[in-house]
Amino acid sequence: MTPSPIVRIRLQVDLDYQVGEHGADFIWNIHAAHAPCQTVVSENLTLSQSVPSRLDVDPVSRNRYLRLHALPGELKLRYAATVDLAHHRGDPGQLAEVPVQHLPLHVLGYLYPSRYCQSDRLVQFAIKEFGGLWQGYSRVQAIQQWVQRQVSFVSNTSNSSTSAVDTLIEQRGVCRDFAHLMIALCRAVNIPARFATGTDYGADPALGPPDFHAYVEVYLGDRWYIFDPSGTAIPMGLVRLGTGRDAADVAIATIFGAVQSSPPVIHAEAVDDAAHGFVVPHHCREALSTD
Amino acid sequence: MTPSPIVRIRLQVDLDYQVGEHGADFIWNIHAAHAPCQTVVSENLTLSQSVPSRLDVDPVSRNRYLRLHALPGELKLRYAATVDLAHHRGDPGQLAEVPVQHLPLHVLGYLYPSRYCQSDRLVQFAIKEFGGLWQGYSRVQAIQQWVQRQVSFVSNTSNSSTSAVDTLIEQRGVCRDFAHLMIALCRAVNIPARFATGTDYGADPALGPPDFHAYVEVYLGDRWYIFDPSGTAIPMGLVRLGTGRDAADVAIATIFGAVQSSPPVIHAEAVDDAAHGFVVPHHCREALSTD
Amino acid sequence: MTPSPIVRIRLQVDLDYQVGEHGADFIWNIHAAHAPCQTVVSENLTLSQSVPSRLDVDPVSRNRYLRLHALPGELKLRYAATVDLAHHRGDPGQLAEVPVQHLPLHVLGYLYPSRYCQSDRLVQFAIKEFGGLWQGYSRVQAIQQWVQRQVSFVSNTSNSSTSAVDTLIEQRGVCRDFAHLMIALCRAVNIPARFATGTDYGADPALGPPDFHAYVEVYLGDRWYIFDPSGTAIPMGLVRLGTGRDAADVAIATIFGAVQSSPPVIHAEAVDDAAHGFVVPHHCREALSTD
Amino acid sequence: MTPSPIVRIRLQVDLDYQVGEHGADFIWNIHAAHAPCQTVVSENLTLSQSVPSRLDVDPVSRNRYLRLHALPGELKLRYAATVDLAHHRGDPGQLAEVPVQHLPLHVLGYLYPSRYCQSDRLVQFAIKEFGGLWQGYSRVQAIQQWVQRQVSFVSNTSNSSTSAVDTLIEQRGVCRDFAHLMIALCRAVNIPARFATGTDYGADPALGPPDFHAYVEVYLGDRWYIFDPSGTAIPMGLVRLGTGRDAADVAIATIFGAVQSSPPVIHAEAVDDAAHGFVVPHHCREALSTD
Repeated sequence: MTPSPIVRIRLQVDLDYQVGEHGADFIWNIHAAHAPCQTVVSENLTLSQSVPSRLDVDPVSRNRYLRLHALPGELKLRYAATVDLAHHRGDPGQLAEVPVQHLPLHVLGYLYPSRYCQSDRLVQFAIKEFGGLWQGYSRVQAIQQWVQRQVSFVSNTSNSSTSAVDTLIEQRGVCRDFAHLMIALCRAVNIPARFATGTDYGADPALGPPDFHAYVEVYLGDRWYIFDPSGTAIPMGLVRLGTGRDAADVAIATIFGAVQSSPPVIHAEAVDDAAHGFVVPHHCREALSTD
Repeated sequence: MTPSPIVRIRLQVDLDYQVGEHGADFIWNIHAAHAPCQTVVSENLTLSQSVPSRLDVDPVSRNRYLRLHALPGELKLRYAATVDLAHHRGDPGQLAEVPVQHLPLHVLGYLYPSRYCQSDRLVQFAIKEFGGLWQGYSRVQAIQQWVQRQVSFVSNTSNSSTSAVDTLIEQRGVCRDFAHLMIALCRAVNIPARFATGTDYGADPALGPPDFHAYVEVYLGDRWYIFDPSGTAIPMGLVRLGTGRDAADVAIATIFGAVQSSPPVIHAEAVDDAAHGFVVPHHCREALSTD
Repeated sequence: MTPSPIVRIRLQVDLDYQVGEHGADFIWNIHAAHAPCQTVVSENLTLSQSVPSRLDVDPVSRNRYLRLHALPGELKLRYAATVDLAHHRGDPGQLAEVPVQHLPLHVLGYLYPSRYCQSDRLVQFAIKEFGGLWQGYSRVQAIQQWVQRQVSFVSNTSNSSTSAVDTLIEQRGVCRDFAHLMIALCRAVNIPARFATGTDYGADPALGPPDFHAYVEVYLGDRWYIFDPSGTAIPMGLVRLGTGRDAADVAIATIFGAVQSSPPVIHAEAVDDAAHGFVVPHHCREALSTD
Repeated sequence: MTPSPIVRIRLQVDLDYQVGEHGADFIWNIHAAHAPCQTVVSENLTLSQSVPSRLDVDPVSRNRYLRLHALPGELKLRYAATVDLAHHRGDPGQLAEVPVQHLPLHVLGYLYPSRYCQSDRLVQFAIKEFGGLWQGYSRVQAIQQWVQRQVSFVSNTSNSSTSAVDTLIEQRGVCRDFAHLMIALCRAVNIPARFATGTDYGADPALGPPDFHAYVEVYLGDRWYIFDPSGTAIPMGLVRLGTGRDAADVAIATIFGAVQSSPPVIHAEAVDDAAHGFVVPHHCREALSTD
């Protein structure tokens, strides 16, 4: 077996805040995850305020959380990293859904409804649309394609309380809304699905400047595979930041206090150097996993 | 310091199902949790079908999950246990809220909105009602009392999709609804809160036959403390089965397949034997924790 | 042109209440409407309490409202009527949708969203599903059939706050829910639609004892035509009681005060007497209107 | 009895649209209503397109609807009017709530829930907050003040699908949201309430340029009285355009087709000429009605 080709992404994220007079607490999930197939070659974090900070890794999700209490005034954060992705590649035809009684315990929670993914309300709907399909990767792909076809990508039509139910009804939204709807539909037919955030190499410029991306991971066979229901990213180029039940769990920044935020500025480029074994992200037929 | 008095509960739960012709998968969270202050002295599980089953313990929540694939026909489950509760007892006046940057990582998730506890939508409301109160146990108690005062306990007015927002609007529900609303309000003012299920010694007979109980645990000081917003239980007599974000995480039974369920039959009695150091559950002023 | 065949329905409705100690106000919409093609040949109302009552006719909708203040204790109401239906019959192929600027003023309100029919949220959805179809009766029929196909008739799955959005998501309900969803989808593509209540000759006995029925009227050509999205009635046998925006407008009984209600008992039979020109209701291809 | 002082408002509204290539249908409710205490002294409508238009008056609500089919390209509409308001003035202490059985038939519909005012869901809440108050004008005023106190006026926090339930939960919104919540609460305690749109002389400049205003009318005694739950207008200066169940009924403009809208430009000034009997709008203690 030939070694998996490696995608090397150079990444830089700049965040800029104005913190109000009482200061504010921040929790960021901005660091690239240390996943089995995702290696952080190097990384660097710069903060404009000299305050104590704390970086923890969740042992189950591998999400990395940075916390600090910021002082009033400006707060800038720059995170730069070089990340290697040597995806596990699955053959879609071989990836089966896992019966409930054989799922690993830590996966069970991703069968249940969550804040933005009320799968409990969509059971009839999902069974009617997807209940009769062959189980396995192809069924998940059918759900992904259905979501992509039904929902239109329209900025500023959803907000922070928009849920999968809203998106199913109103049929428009941004990447986060596509992800929530796909997750809810998977769970409604008993397929574990989780929400992932990342940086998106190769985003469609028609959708605006590069931004964080929200996508989906589905548990098939023995691991979590990447799906991009909004169809706007090249999945091979996604650097994974966090995974969770839905957007409630893996906000890039959770802020406690009066703070004004500027839009994040994100750069992501792929190293194009075949001589050293690096390939540029491209669409492929295989199922990709960073686990 | 005198040792904590011990509450010994003898517990029996009978569940009865009719499984449809294709069989069904079950996940139960029916076993008493192995918590630091809750010891399972003995327990016994009987199943009417001879099928393989699997019992796992979640390393973080300590919830115990029983899984099996049931055959068509009747399925009976009996769980009997003797459980000792030697609660950690906190002085309410000493229990502080914990700043976000000092919360243990595994607690952070309980700050975020979940399926039934859309704390994100209640932020203005909660700040207006509770934002000005002294922080600490007394503020949590104020939230608990507010919920108990606002909401009327009325059977059959809520269903499996009723959420904290619905309960705040419609002002009635059952123990699960009281719990969801209290949790959502706590999170909305940045206090970690989780949903707990248990068996309820001493339930008010006016509310019907003994049933599973839903209540709340709030993180104060360095652990999770018990609150009973419905006011129908004696907290000291609650045997903890599961904890999670909300009811979505800790259903007593999650069933995949066509199954008819009979109402559960529950017995819980406290051993009344002061000579051997056992006390009968009673209301007390101290804050109780099974952690 | 031969005269329209006449359907003669003999109808009896019995309502039974226990009024609490403070008395209660009632508004009923229980009388058969005086519509152009629906003639009340005879009717009789009996009340078990001797209290003043008041019967008004809405000049626009022709709904008839009975009001009274009931005393504590039992209250029985019996309404019996003989009603002749000589429907206006339209040729479906000739019935066009009416451009907004040509709609009669009193029809405009039925383009707008209402309590249970949030057509404003379904615009994208409806345009995607039905926007490309030929306009006219056939498009309305396509909406009706889509609703009938998507939604399952299941008793006790909806309640008095269930709306069209809920039904679209949860895909089950009773006649009232089918009607709300069809109305919302029609309005979302700018077709005026209203909610109608009636008594249902020939209801499917599998759905339980005879009950009031909820159905839909859609404005096409120059009048309102009957549609039955639940598919459980024979439209030709429906005696119209009330029409309105949705169920909020035309409750059979609106009660102000503490009252216990027994299920209504309804009898409806068609006079089978061809010699006198009466036909028995049957399914037909023509579009029917009582206006 | 001295004649009621007269408020004379000079009003001008400019609307500007870009109509897409297929044209579009418009329904406006932009003309000042011909109400008993509101006289249109003169008015003038200018349209930039020479297309047929149609102006109808609803005989019940007295709303005036302008309809036309616009051609592709720019469409400008200017409506200018001089309107005299000689309000009926009621003594708040004398204005009683009307028992359901004595309400005029055309008022009954305003007891029921509507798209944005789901009073059916707020019954428990409203009874708990307002059920114990003395009935009459003072109770309505208590509801108005409660809404004004609970809800913060914040632009861009609500959208076209925000309802009274959302506003009660999220506690912020604009004038339309205040109106919807007050209406829903009134109906929940059986007080008929309707939504009104108008132009607002004397709007608080801190809230931005003059705009259309949304307020409430409540049926007390024998007519509809004006309430302004957002507290941003001087009620005496409101020129009434339309009334209805809620915002769904009385949109300033309902547009069918692809159209881009510019913000409306509104001028409203009061004639300050005591010599001729005109008074400038001011806050007063009396209850005001234009009926």
